[in-house]
Amino acid sequence: MHVTTKLQTEPVDLPAEARRLAGQARAASWKLAGVGGRQRNEVLRSLADLLEERTDHLVQANGRDLDLAGESGASEAFVGKLRIGPPDVATMAAAVRRIGDQTDPVGQVIEGSVRPNGLRLEKVRVPLGVILIIYESRPNVTCDAAALCLKAGNATILRGGKEAAHSNAVIAEAVRDALEAQGLDRDTVQLVQTSDRALVGELLKRNKEIDVVIPRGGAGLIRAVVEQSHIPVIKHFDGICHVYVDRHALELPEGQAAAICVNAKAQRPGVCNAAETLLFHEAAAPILRETGRRLRDAGVEIRGCELTRQILESAEPATEDDWSTEYLDKIVSIRVVSSLADAVEHINRHGSGHTDAILTADIASADAFVAAVDSANVMVNCSTRFSDGGEYGLGAEIGISTDKLHARGPMGAADLTTYKWVVRGDGQVRQ
Amino acid sequence: MHVTTKLQTEPVDLPAEARRLAGQARAASWKLAGVGGRQRNEVLRSLADLLEERTDHLVQANGRDLDLAGESGASEAFVGKLRIGPPDVATMAAAVRRIGDQTDPVGQVIEGSVRPNGLRLEKVRVPLGVILIIYESRPNVTCDAAALCLKAGNATILRGGKEAAHSNAVIAEAVRDALEAQGLDRDTVQLVQTSDRALVGELLKRNKEIDVVIPRGGAGLIRAVVEQSHIPVIKHFDGICHVYVDRHALELPEGQAAAICVNAKAQRPGVCNAAETLLFHEAAAPILRETGRRLRDAGVEIRGCELTRQILESAEPATEDDWSTEYLDKIVSIRVVSSLADAVEHINRHGSGHTDAILTADIASADAFVAAVDSANVMVNCSTRFSDGGEYGLGAEIGISTDKLHARGPMGAADLTTYKWVVRGDGQVRQ
Repeated sequence: MHVTTKLQTEPVDLPAEARRLAGQARAASWKLAGVGGRQRNEVLRSLADLLEERTDHLVQANGRDLDLAGESGASEAFVGKLRIGPPDVATMAAAVRRIGDQTDPVGQVIEGSVRPNGLRLEKVRVPLGVILIIYESRPNVTCDAAALCLKAGNATILRGGKEAAHSNAVIAEAVRDALEAQGLDRDTVQLVQTSDRALVGELLKRNKEIDVVIPRGGAGLIRAVVEQSHIPVIKHFDGICHVYVDRHALELPEGQAAAICVNAKAQRPGVCNAAETLLFHEAAAPILRETGRRLRDAGVEIRGCELTRQILESAEPATEDDWSTEYLDKIVSIRVVSSLADAVEHINRHGSGHTDAILTADIASADAFVAAVDSANVMVNCSTRFSDGGEYGLGAEIGISTDKLHARGPMGAADLTTYKWVVRGDGQVRQ
Repeated sequence: MHVTTKLQTEPVDLPAEARRLAGQARAASWKLAGVGGRQRNEVLRSLADLLEERTDHLVQANGRDLDLAGESGASEAFVGKLRIGPPDVATMAAAVRRIGDQTDPVGQVIEGSVRPNGLRLEKVRVPLGVILIIYESRPNVTCDAAALCLKAGNATILRGGKEAAHSNAVIAEAVRDALEAQGLDRDTVQLVQTSDRALVGELLKRNKEIDVVIPRGGAGLIRAVVEQSHIPVIKHFDGICHVYVDRHALELPEGQAAAICVNAKAQRPGVCNAAETLLFHEAAAPILRETGRRLRDAGVEIRGCELTRQILESAEPATEDDWSTEYLDKIVSIRVVSSLADAVEHINRHGSGHTDAILTADIASADAFVAAVDSANVMVNCSTRFSDGGEYGLGAEIGISTDKLHARGPMGAADLTTYKWVVRGDGQVRQ
């Protein structure tokens, strides 16, 4: 460990700064381990109140971020994600209150038994400890992530995008004030505002103090975090979701399959659970024709395989890349397959393990699809757009995991916990 | 992707070899996803039978490994771990049969609900997929790991130590023959026998095909795997376990606390759940005195802090390093502390998050310890030696995780699964 003489003009000693931040978070997490759910919920209620009280202040700070974004020539879409108006503050506060009202995952006994030797065994949910959240420009993540981590009893280090620096500072201050108001350590939630990317690299080495990293943002951010991190990462890469229209979809109520396809693609194309590829059994050509018409009516561009283009003449030709592309836009790729097995093979090869649906009236087809598709969410006769923590009844969601370890699919507060085996005896020794 | 012209004399193209092995495992895992528990259990029964039938053959192959170990001047302890006699084969076969008899984790519905819109939601246990096990010289790991992974519906790539190459080859052949006898793909279990460490490095890059890596062995092996791997790792580092003798241990039945301390340290000192450090509240000096006497009778060397040495005069002085050392031997470090909080602070600072126990008659002390100690297993009034999958009733154990994500503490077959959200509707679209 090297010592630097700190001069005002000298750059920050990044390893020392990372050690300090992580050490404070670890210490705060140990203190928080002794704090009950009622008190954690009080913090959330205080936070919601403070956000509302500080609406003007937050909107002003956000205005500064918007001005800077405008000066740097940011796109309209980018500015849209960054903008916070008074209704957005109210939405944020309401979300925090809802998190406060959710069931407390901490302390739940997952399983338990009495062993033949009299030992009483319990597997009890406990907080993970310290969570590092790395995210991009949406300032509401500062609030949502801090609240959800706190709900599950975790200390948090938040590393937001510099584009939202002024907004994030006001939100984080409200969180820390709410903690202090309830007699808890302000450093339970820390916001990292330096624009120095190297500090993130140093934080990603602190695997003694930080238990898990959750990156939220584009694939580039996530890949960078995964490559650098010495700490386990829970991640969500692409959402390349599929709807497979089985031959037995013809037996579904008239129009149902086409309606689901259009909903999955076009109801909100920019989100991860929107469909990117539709697969049609060759016998389902009538549904393909109807779906094509309705997609065009919804303004969706279609890129099809050769067989698709024989049926939908206006479709553009799909290239090999189309099968692995998350458009996040009003574009869809369509392929005609000759069997359910081919559809499964396509999904497992080109998909991202996020959400895939089959539309069919046939039990055997549905069961085969559900068993064989290796994805976090597998659906029968509904839109992929339902793949969401709120829709699943998990409450607020920290993200949708496409990993297989720890958590898969929509992640709620319970997924921000681990467990501890508690064993109580009355003098047992092992023979 | 480059193409090499394969000549007999040319070295193997390691990236291609890793791709081939991982691809075969992935394909086998997808086939296995459709195979029911009954058939998987039949494979395990066939394997147990084949192992018994091939006892002589296995013992002979093991003899070649032992000869080579002898020639290379291996230690007696090393040879002891490597040796397989006919009773060891019987033990292995019995373990495989027990795994076959365990409850099948695959297909268990972890939770489920019907959503207000009529969607039926199930969170269903499914196999992880492909597991890479990297281990050292004990050949029985080949059998145990393959059987437990198969129980949970996973394909496995086994990378054993080269010292056990002949033994491992016979065991792996029995596993593959058992798979074939039940009509399953032999490549469901593959053994990697090349001594080239670089191949392991290439396998650790195959994160599209391999879902998780489990290293089993010393800390050096585990650290190397963690540093190289692009695939999530479930690991078990050190077992630096503690027993804290509270001031209220004086109110426990006469002799109980000392008996537990001695059992935790000396009953089997070479394993990860044996205690390495004993902490005594300063008021518990009478128990420290008794424990010291009984430890010496059991041949255990004591290294103590200054206060310990005032009570146990024959104790050697402990250095700072002693508090962070896993002796795996008849050595114990002892520290006197002035409060439960100091004991917790010592454990969270120096421990490895494996297993820690408090001995006390006081409910408040027990509760405070259980809440504050950040370890996988926290025990009250029993020996740390009970931290074990068999003792917990989990059946066979693939290891003891000191991670917090996915699995913590003893890991059984259920910890070799993930889950899938299955959503069934009747035409729902999102508004």
